[in-house]
Amino acid sequence: MKPTHIEHIGIAVKSLEEGIKYYESVLGLKCYAIEEVREQKVKTAFFKIGQTKIELLEPTASDGSVGKFIAAKGEGIHHIAFSVEQLEEVLKEVEQKGARLIDKIPRKGAEGLHIAFLHPKSTMGVLTELCENKND
Amino acid sequence: MKPTHIEHIGIAVKSLEEGIKYYESVLGLKCYAIEEVREQKVKTAFFKIGQTKIELLEPTASDGSVGKFIAAKGEGIHHIAFSVEQLEEVLKEVEQKGARLIDKIPRKGAEGLHIAFLHPKSTMGVLTELCENKND
Repeated sequence: MKPTHIEHIGIAVKSLEEGIKYYESVLGLKCYAIEEVREQKVKTAFFKIGQTKIELLEPTASDGSVGKFIAAKGEGIHHIAFSVEQLEEVLKEVEQKGARLIDKIPRKGAEGLHIAFLHPKSTMGVLTELCENKND
Repeated sequence: MKPTHIEHIGIAVKSLEEGIKYYESVLGLKCYAIEEVREQKVKTAFFKIGQTKIELLEPTASDGSVGKFIAAKGEGIHHIAFSVEQLEEVLKEVEQKGARLIDKIPRKGAEGLHIAFLHPKSTMGVLTELCENKND
């Protein structure tokens, strides 16, 4: 596995509206897209900074992963996503090396990326997403 | 304020040795530097991925910020650092816009960067570092 860059950093917020206001007015970033990912029970807002995106995540239900995260820990950094090529092969490789896969097979995430999550118990406490952009 | 890229992501780990092993063997990154930052009571290990660094932080004392973080929340993502220019001006600007400054004046961080932290209570739960590289 050779990740090329940090694709995005996922940040859990209670309110997308408040989050967008903060990232635009204080940090000077520009929200370029808002998207609902129903399967994940979140609404997302995207900002680009260099090679990386900030992905704000507002839960649309309390029983989704982000809703549970906020209930347990409050707002804050939720996950890091690494950009990789040949995601299916990479998943086999990292599993063999001891990572625990939340997604054994890549699935569709926001922005049409192919994504898979690794369990934080196997990644030093960091919820880790691997993603491949097949649109490039 | 116009941050140019994510300078680094700080990740709290109990053991730098275990952390380096995981990031090298599973994620395929290469540790290029280890540095102790006494003032912060941490030992750090750096990995480069695209424009961004992963900075692993092992506490050298339980009463430092990272030691307390691990005691309260366990290992995991600790902070995000944005690269900016003219940090002193930026600090005045973000304070005026409502951010609470942990460091009113920039100080020296790892790798000789000038750094300042914003309090997570004013940044949607994200411990946010701003840093300027005057060595470039």
